[in-house]
Amino acid sequence: MSIITIERKVLEKNDQIAAQNREKFIQSRIFTINMVSSPGAGKTSILEKTLSQLKDKINIAIVVGDVQTDLDAQRIEKFGIPVVQIVTHGSCHLDAKLVQDAINNMNLDGIQLLIIENVGNLVCPANYDLGEHMKVVIASIAEGEDKPLKYPAMFRNASVLIINKIDLLAYTNCNLDLLKNNALRINPNLKVFQTSCTTNEGINEWCNWLEQKVNETWRKQ
Amino acid sequence: MSIITIERKVLEKNDQIAAQNREKFIQSRIFTINMVSSPGAGKTSILEKTLSQLKDKINIAIVVGDVQTDLDAQRIEKFGIPVVQIVTHGSCHLDAKLVQDAINNMNLDGIQLLIIENVGNLVCPANYDLGEHMKVVIASIAEGEDKPLKYPAMFRNASVLIINKIDLLAYTNCNLDLLKNNALRINPNLKVFQTSCTTNEGINEWCNWLEQKVNETWRKQ
Repeated sequence: MSIITIERKVLEKNDQIAAQNREKFIQSRIFTINMVSSPGAGKTSILEKTLSQLKDKINIAIVVGDVQTDLDAQRIEKFGIPVVQIVTHGSCHLDAKLVQDAINNMNLDGIQLLIIENVGNLVCPANYDLGEHMKVVIASIAEGEDKPLKYPAMFRNASVLIINKIDLLAYTNCNLDLLKNNALRINPNLKVFQTSCTTNEGINEWCNWLEQKVNETWRKQ
Repeated sequence: MSIITIERKVLEKNDQIAAQNREKFIQSRIFTINMVSSPGAGKTSILEKTLSQLKDKINIAIVVGDVQTDLDAQRIEKFGIPVVQIVTHGSCHLDAKLVQDAINNMNLDGIQLLIIENVGNLVCPANYDLGEHMKVVIASIAEGEDKPLKYPAMFRNASVLIINKIDLLAYTNCNLDLLKNNALRINPNLKVFQTSCTTNEGINEWCNWLEQKVNETWRKQ
């Protein structure tokens, strides 16, 4: 029980800093997404596909979180856009303070889209608001259809679900309809995309939707 | 930094209770494994295969941890062996106290093998000793080859690596040799199995090895 008490205090402090981040994003008209998933669901691959399609149309910056290594930042660097890697050294999630430190070290002038790639974890990142406009949860077909029920907070707090590795559907016993129904039962407002970074299925739909959201935010004020 | 201090205290307390659990397992000659992985890597499927092969040869009990739902316990119940489901209600890992409460509510007389299925998470369960003999980490082919480098604590603290969903190898760009090399670079002592719960590849090898470990422990004293 004492753990829970400590956790509450940590979360309250986190929410205060997240509010500061959010205010900054709104003032700067930067649309910000927080990408979350299990390890290996394909966050970085989706990010690479998104950057390929959108980097010449809109100004993008990236914050990448990992427990160890800067492998993900290395994969992103080739796109020639601002990237900050946060290595959490054992912590299982990004928090608002880490993101605040990261964006204070970036030049965000003219940036229209900030993508935060969280640590691979379906539990704790659900509870740590970073100040983002929305969480985008990525679930791989290979993980099976029961994950929304077993990790409901993540699916409840997300606005978008990307069902990735859809090309593996034929080779697994995952029931796609059941996966979608399970997710929508937890959160009926989820916008759902189906993608494959191998066949490019669904990548256009996702990128077009994201571009539109960015432009809506940029045109405000 | 304050979070880290709190975490240390929590871990010290955890380690004390884990030591009590360990003492109980040793006294009772119960070989205990802690199964850990990302969500959807196949812990429950491996567990089902293991129970099918071993339940008539050795006496097994199960503790299953989940953030929400008792779906996993439901899948295990059909084997007619003792199962306790721990629902952590948002916590991202099992701790020694939860396991202690669980085993205090089980009849362990004659039990030779206790399998603890942890919450799906490659980060925090690495740091929480439950008193087990060994951690068994399961990595799915679909997660790619970089997970040992990105989540090193888990692979360093595990004794066994089961590379699961090996049947998907032909349909992904996962480099199996690199995955094994990455894991062995982090932990050269890892015992590695390659399995598929679809084709049953490697299941015999894993079960035979586990049965031998159980028998060695049971014969002691």
